[in-house]
Amino acid sequence: MDRVLGIDVGGTSIKVGLFTPEGELLEERKIPTPALVDEAAFAQVTEGLGRVLAAHDATPADVVACGLDIPGPVADDGTVGFLPNIQLDPEGLVGALSHYLPQTTTAFVNDANAAALGELWAGSARDVSSFVLLALGTGVGAGVVVGGRLVAGAFGAGGEAGHITVRRDEPRACGCGRHGCLEQYASATGVVRLYLEACESRGVTPVHIEHATDTLSVFGALEQGDECARIAVDQMCDYLALAMSQISCVIDPALYLIGGGVGGAFATFAPRLRERFHELALPTCAGVRIEAASLGNQAAMYGCAYEALRLRG
Amino acid sequence: MDRVLGIDVGGTSIKVGLFTPEGELLEERKIPTPALVDEAAFAQVTEGLGRVLAAHDATPADVVACGLDIPGPVADDGTVGFLPNIQLDPEGLVGALSHYLPQTTTAFVNDANAAALGELWAGSARDVSSFVLLALGTGVGAGVVVGGRLVAGAFGAGGEAGHITVRRDEPRACGCGRHGCLEQYASATGVVRLYLEACESRGVTPVHIEHATDTLSVFGALEQGDECARIAVDQMCDYLALAMSQISCVIDPALYLIGGGVGGAFATFAPRLRERFHELALPTCAGVRIEAASLGNQAAMYGCAYEALRLRG
Repeated sequence: MDRVLGIDVGGTSIKVGLFTPEGELLEERKIPTPALVDEAAFAQVTEGLGRVLAAHDATPADVVACGLDIPGPVADDGTVGFLPNIQLDPEGLVGALSHYLPQTTTAFVNDANAAALGELWAGSARDVSSFVLLALGTGVGAGVVVGGRLVAGAFGAGGEAGHITVRRDEPRACGCGRHGCLEQYASATGVVRLYLEACESRGVTPVHIEHATDTLSVFGALEQGDECARIAVDQMCDYLALAMSQISCVIDPALYLIGGGVGGAFATFAPRLRERFHELALPTCAGVRIEAASLGNQAAMYGCAYEALRLRG
Repeated sequence: MDRVLGIDVGGTSIKVGLFTPEGELLEERKIPTPALVDEAAFAQVTEGLGRVLAAHDATPADVVACGLDIPGPVADDGTVGFLPNIQLDPEGLVGALSHYLPQTTTAFVNDANAAALGELWAGSARDVSSFVLLALGTGVGAGVVVGGRLVAGAFGAGGEAGHITVRRDEPRACGCGRHGCLEQYASATGVVRLYLEACESRGVTPVHIEHATDTLSVFGALEQGDECARIAVDQMCDYLALAMSQISCVIDPALYLIGGGVGGAFATFAPRLRERFHELALPTCAGVRIEAASLGNQAAMYGCAYEALRLRG
């Protein structure tokens, strides 16, 4: 019985999904791991996988494809770029997995790209051959699908839509060192900052904010009629719509999917986002659909499994 | 003997290229035509094609593919959109061609997209699977190739890079009705206007300019050390590099090709354009090549022939 694994690779744990080749998720399990840089850590991964497989009467020989999604660039040829946020030896891990899973095609996929592929396989983008997933989380990632295939990019920067410049005169620097990137306004951090700035410039006391990415409180305030929350969310929608209008001038997708933590409030800001897109985009592209992603934080796990399965052919 | 036709469809004439399936151009001929909207006009086209074929001992039955490039949007499914600049009945013309060339696959391709495909088939982008051709002419068109395939777009706006917004506070409206499109600065018209504005704001008498798209005189002045020409060309390079840096955040191509009339001066402005791109783009994409297109105004004729041949399979 053929099985497929999708593995979310994180800094302190991995999240494993066991799938059928048709995209049914049989089980999801979190396996705590040390830094994935030596044989002891790789062994902890394969032992964890063994337990997941055994729980479903499967053996390593049943696994035909194994995808790994990672928070960093992966180029068209599968090469893994610089990973600032996790400790990982990609070749070592793939070597250990290939040894443990002898029938398996293994592939790395960037996490936002993987999320897009997940939506293509089993989510909101099923049967849509060209779309862009915008994942609005701590940062802003994106996955670009054209002709049913992910665009990873010649240097792994395909879908780096969080770094589209939307405001050239921004004094603050983005994490990438440049100024005025979409991520500075449409990430969770960005929305909270826009809200606090709106309050400060108007001399208004903000609602209680738990932490730097607490957009729940901002969207909650918006629903209570908070004027500063309205201003902040309007600004976010303006910059997001501007970036989407640029993307449409390049690849003109049929669909945008909004995901990530901020995407959880999609119903609240969707009318404003759609309105702003229609004001800013080329009229030719006005028929594009703008919808919510549907697989939440499982999307990347689905998508890397799908990509490994696809590469197997 | 298999032959392929590439036809540039213009307002008052068509330009026909007769090719081998390997991409060798056997002959190029211009055929004056009335508006392509009735049987009389279509007959003038097929008679002209007959003469081109006869000159190379070929008959209509030898033609296996015929591409038509047109100055307007063509969607992923081959549908022709609104054509403001020519009078053409697309279905009628295809019907007449299909009747005259019974073995032939016929396809419409947008002109900038066709130019990109031409460079892929027989020009500077041979063997490059992801690149963007930027055609800087009266307007700015572009053709986007990803995974060796043209990205026409869900609504035919793939490669509308001339309408990437590079300056939101531009008071002048672009032809599309929006403000601050790349085309307003990097087209031939744009470069001439930037030069005349630089002269006016500095109270300097400009060099003689023949017409609204006479960039030759501007680049000539630049080579003579004209300070206002330097300012104008720097501005053009700044906006062009900014738009390219946005494109790289979406599809991250391996190569940019600069073509069109303004592209004729590529050697003059290339150092500044490359420098500005490196200042503005994500460092991840810094390895992208920025080169001149090589097929000039034959590129689209090559490219539509290639696309029709490809669709034939």
